[in-house]
Amino acid sequence: MRREEIEDRLLTFKDICRVKVRFNDTDMMGIVHFKNYLVYFDDGFVSFMNNFLAPVRVENTVHLGTAFGVKKVEITYEGSAKFGDYIIVETTIKKIGTSSIQFHHDLFRERDNALLATVDCVRLAIDIKKNHLVPVLDFFSNYSQL
Amino acid sequence: MRREEIEDRLLTFKDICRVKVRFNDTDMMGIVHFKNYLVYFDDGFVSFMNNFLAPVRVENTVHLGTAFGVKKVEITYEGSAKFGDYIIVETTIKKIGTSSIQFHHDLFRERDNALLATVDCVRLAIDIKKNHLVPVLDFFSNYSQL
Amino acid sequence: MRREEIEDRLLTFKDICRVKVRFNDTDMMGIVHFKNYLVYFDDGFVSFMNNFLAPVRVENTVHLGTAFGVKKVEITYEGSAKFGDYIIVETTIKKIGTSSIQFHHDLFRERDNALLATVDCVRLAIDIKKNHLVPVLDFFSNYSQL
Amino acid sequence: MRREEIEDRLLTFKDICRVKVRFNDTDMMGIVHFKNYLVYFDDGFVSFMNNFLAPVRVENTVHLGTAFGVKKVEITYEGSAKFGDYIIVETTIKKIGTSSIQFHHDLFRERDNALLATVDCVRLAIDIKKNHLVPVLDFFSNYSQL
Repeated sequence: MRREEIEDRLLTFKDICRVKVRFNDTDMMGIVHFKNYLVYFDDGFVSFMNNFLAPVRVENTVHLGTAFGVKKVEITYEGSAKFGDYIIVETTIKKIGTSSIQFHHDLFRERDNALLATVDCVRLAIDIKKNHLVPVLDFFSNYSQL
Repeated sequence: MRREEIEDRLLTFKDICRVKVRFNDTDMMGIVHFKNYLVYFDDGFVSFMNNFLAPVRVENTVHLGTAFGVKKVEITYEGSAKFGDYIIVETTIKKIGTSSIQFHHDLFRERDNALLATVDCVRLAIDIKKNHLVPVLDFFSNYSQL
Repeated sequence: MRREEIEDRLLTFKDICRVKVRFNDTDMMGIVHFKNYLVYFDDGFVSFMNNFLAPVRVENTVHLGTAFGVKKVEITYEGSAKFGDYIIVETTIKKIGTSSIQFHHDLFRERDNALLATVDCVRLAIDIKKNHLVPVLDFFSNYSQL
Repeated sequence: MRREEIEDRLLTFKDICRVKVRFNDTDMMGIVHFKNYLVYFDDGFVSFMNNFLAPVRVENTVHLGTAFGVKKVEITYEGSAKFGDYIIVETTIKKIGTSSIQFHHDLFRERDNALLATVDCVRLAIDIKKNHLVPVLDFFSNYSQL
């Protein structure tokens, strides 16, 4: 696939995944602790990548030496979830830079569709062994050829 | 203490605390996972509150029915920490709204003073039982009188 | 249902659930940190309870005032899991005391069926508000009537 | 140091460390979730090792290629801790096998000295690169010479 095609496909791709709230995700307020939403949207990222790269799995791209390191997270909390709730994570890409890529995640509570959090997350494509940045589109075009 | 005095004191107060990186804070990249920095700066928040309110402890304000819920987090990662590192968390307040308060945290690696992350975190003062917002300065003036 | 029937059903019931290993479940050794297996077998416990009590959900029994607190855990590690692995948790009950109940969990790696851990976990039925023990079979017979 | 001396010293050494309970260590029951006691006694293990091996630090032995992997944990819960509590972890060694070593940890709540949990934890000395077992006393005699 050519880079323009990959870029177009990335910018129009949308992933939806579902995460269950565990008992130990809650804190003494009886609701999910704010740090755990980072785990939930990271599930959205992994799901997006796996569905986009299928049949290549992002779990393997990590073992192969490239990873998307998190550079910046901006998260706004709009509601709260409880033990046993299911969270729906909708993931899209907002912007593609040279070595950076900005994901957007909306997190909803499944039972009433209430918005729980919105996230903008900038990630950098990194060659783990050489420890330097890799062009984002190289990352995707390499794996799309596997 | 009058509200103006509390506000002045809050806006000039600075807290420094020290957090040890645990083995299980790391991930397979060998460095601290990005979600754990939320735990570290939350330690900075607790330390700030306890030093500001001393001898009142924020752990007790939670039991008494008020809490500072996290509304928004903006975190930028500038470096990484490893198992055994100590993180220095510097905490100040950037802005005080009616029911909101914006904390700023800078996280450094102790051994070489490298900046690891900067955080802006907006929190809301909440009456837990009534589940409504409380003016920030009421929160502080009540506890300062204890 | 009579107590003897509940007891018989409990001792022959078997639950199988599937848990995905997250990136942040790993540590710098590249494998799942030993504490996270407690989260996995707790998923097995919740799944067992929900399938046994269906349509009542254990998430609601917690809100209603009873819970199974963990009294003792004995876990032996036989293998290790990586990011992206799926864990199969098989859960049965080994023994029912007056207020205690002993669960047994076997955790397998799905891709090759390797045994990762075996767990014996004693839980106590607790009335959360009154903070005292409840007979295990009362717990189940109450909820089975809902 | 000769092996007999190391063994004697290990079996009589006692470490005491202090851990603060974080807000996010609690769950919706208002008390520390049972999995977090594994983090607390692991702090006890790290503290024991660092005080025993001083000035060598166990954090560095991990980077150098040996680690003590957890083989078995037996934990009994006797009480519960809350946000803001300090936990005192007392660590001793109960038994030294060829490649295995059994640690014992007692966890107390600092404010009233209440026993919260007792732990027996068997660990195996592992050469991480070669992925095979190492004699425990070799591990200690190597590092004692650094």
